[in-house]
Amino acid sequence: MSITVVGTVAFDAIQTPFGKVDRCIGGSATYFSVAASFFSPVNLVSVIGDDFTDEDAAIFNGRDINLDGLQRIAGAKSFFWSGEYGFDLNVAKTRDTQLNVLAEFNPQLNERQRNAKVLFLANAQPDLQLTVKKQSNAPVVALDTMNYWISSAKEALTRVFSEVDLLVINEAEVRQYTGEANLIKGARQILALGPETIVIKRGEYGVLMATKSAIFAAPAYPLENVFDPTGAGDTFAGGFLGYLASRDEVGDREMRRAIIYGSVLASFTVEKFSLDRLREITIDDVNARFEAFQQLMAF
Amino acid sequence: MSITVVGTVAFDAIQTPFGKVDRCIGGSATYFSVAASFFSPVNLVSVIGDDFTDEDAAIFNGRDINLDGLQRIAGAKSFFWSGEYGFDLNVAKTRDTQLNVLAEFNPQLNERQRNAKVLFLANAQPDLQLTVKKQSNAPVVALDTMNYWISSAKEALTRVFSEVDLLVINEAEVRQYTGEANLIKGARQILALGPETIVIKRGEYGVLMATKSAIFAAPAYPLENVFDPTGAGDTFAGGFLGYLASRDEVGDREMRRAIIYGSVLASFTVEKFSLDRLREITIDDVNARFEAFQQLMAF
Repeated sequence: MSITVVGTVAFDAIQTPFGKVDRCIGGSATYFSVAASFFSPVNLVSVIGDDFTDEDAAIFNGRDINLDGLQRIAGAKSFFWSGEYGFDLNVAKTRDTQLNVLAEFNPQLNERQRNAKVLFLANAQPDLQLTVKKQSNAPVVALDTMNYWISSAKEALTRVFSEVDLLVINEAEVRQYTGEANLIKGARQILALGPETIVIKRGEYGVLMATKSAIFAAPAYPLENVFDPTGAGDTFAGGFLGYLASRDEVGDREMRRAIIYGSVLASFTVEKFSLDRLREITIDDVNARFEAFQQLMAF
Repeated sequence: MSITVVGTVAFDAIQTPFGKVDRCIGGSATYFSVAASFFSPVNLVSVIGDDFTDEDAAIFNGRDINLDGLQRIAGAKSFFWSGEYGFDLNVAKTRDTQLNVLAEFNPQLNERQRNAKVLFLANAQPDLQLTVKKQSNAPVVALDTMNYWISSAKEALTRVFSEVDLLVINEAEVRQYTGEANLIKGARQILALGPETIVIKRGEYGVLMATKSAIFAAPAYPLENVFDPTGAGDTFAGGFLGYLASRDEVGDREMRRAIIYGSVLASFTVEKFSLDRLREITIDDVNARFEAFQQLMAF
C-alpha cells in the first residue's frame, strides 16, 4: 500500500566536527521518501526551484517514488537550510534558512496522493498541515513539527494534533509543548488531545512509543562513527511509516517492528553526509541491521 | 554465592522539585546491599559514626546482609551528603559533603568477605579501591567511580581499571575519562585497558553494556513519577551484580538479564526518597516489573 509525504526537497549546507559541505541535497520529504521506498510506494509532494537539476533529482531514480507532486518553479530557488553541529551531535544550530519556493507552497493532492494508505505531514506551518490533511482519505495520518511552531503557532498546532492518528516528535518538543518535565506524563497529555500513538525521538538515545495501552522503548543503534545527524528524524519517520504502510494490519506488534526499521534506516543516514549512505544500501543491508538490532536488545 | 561491597553508609539531605528531606539514610553500600540482597547474600563493608542508630540500621534487618564489616566509631559522625535536583533529574548539584568517619576508612576484609564470588568497589579514592581489591579472591571484581577522581586521580584510576573485570560508570564519565565524544569509541578505549565488560549508566535513558564481542542496550523503565534519583546508580549496581552472583554461569545471556534486574531495582528506588520504596517491595514486585520490562522491549 502506498504512502504520501508532503514536505521539503531542499539544499543544505552542513558543518560537523568531521567535515563540511556547502551544498548537498536535503529536505524532509527527500529523506522520508527514500527511506519509505525501501518498503512501500511513495507519492512525493513538494516544490523545488529550477536550481534543482535532473542530476539532483536522480536521488529518486530507480525507487518506487512517484514525482507527479514534485512541482518545479521556473526562475525560483529551492528551499535552503544551513546548519552546524558541535561534538554533541544531538543539537543542530541553524545558521541560515531561505524559504525561497516554499514561501508560496500550497499543495493540492491529486487522487492518487489523496488515496494513499498513509499520509505523512512533515514539519510545516500547522495550518498548512491541516489544509493538506483535509484533502486526504488516508486511514493513517502522521505528523511531525518543530520547536518554532510550538512557540509561534501553538493553537493551530493543537488543532492539527487533534486531527491526526500519529505524532512523530522530539523529546524536547514534548517537554516544550506540555511544559511537563516527565516525558511519560507529557506523552499522556498529548495522547489526550486525540492521537492514538505518539512516537518520541530521543536522538542517540533511541525512541519511545506510547499509546493509551502500551509503551515501547528502543535504544538507538550504537554507532562508532556518527558523521552527520541531518535528516535522521525524517529518515526514521520514512522507515517507520513505510514499513507500516506495507503491512496488512497495523497492530502493536507491527508498530514495534516499524520503530526498529525506522531506527535502522536512520542509523544509516547519519553515517555519511546528506543521503550519501542511504543511496548505497540495499534492503539486505537493512534486514541485516534489523537482525543486529534484535541481538542488541535481546535478553 | 555471596557478594562483598565496600562503600559508604551515610546520611543524606536531599531536595527535589517534589519535596525535601533533611536527614535520611543513604550511602552507596546501603543502596547496593539492599538491592543485591534480593538475589544473593551480601557482606557489607563500611564505616559509621554512633549517630547511626540501631533504628537506622534496621534497614538491613530481615535481609541476607552480613554486617560484620560495618565498623562503628564511637564519638564520630557518619558520612554526610547534601544534594539538590532541578526538574532535570539527571544531574545532582552537591551542596555539602562531610567525610567524617570516612576520612580514616581503611577496610580490612575478613576471610568471608575476601572469598565472596563478586566484589563491588563502590565509588572511592582509586588507591583505596586497589588496596581492597588486592585483599580479595573474588573471580569477579566490579568498580564504580565518579568525575572527581577522573579529574584528580586519573593515573591511580587507570591502574584500578586495569585490575578489574567490570566497570559500572556514567555516560558523562566515559566521555570525561576518554575525551571521546562517541560513547562506543570511548567504551572500546576503556575495554582496551583491561576490563572485560563496561556497563554505562545513562540515567533516564537506560544502560549500555559493551564487551569486546557484544553490545547490549536497554532503555530505563518508563516512570510517570520520578521522585528522587539519589542512589539509583548504586541500586542498579546492586541488582545487576546481586543477580549475577546468584547464577552458576556468568555468560552474555545472564549479563543481559542482570542489567534488566538492575534497571528494575533502580526504577523502584527513584519512586520515593531514600530507600523508602526499596523497603516496601518484595521479590514478586521485582519479577513483575522484570516481565513488564520484557513487554517494554519486545518486538
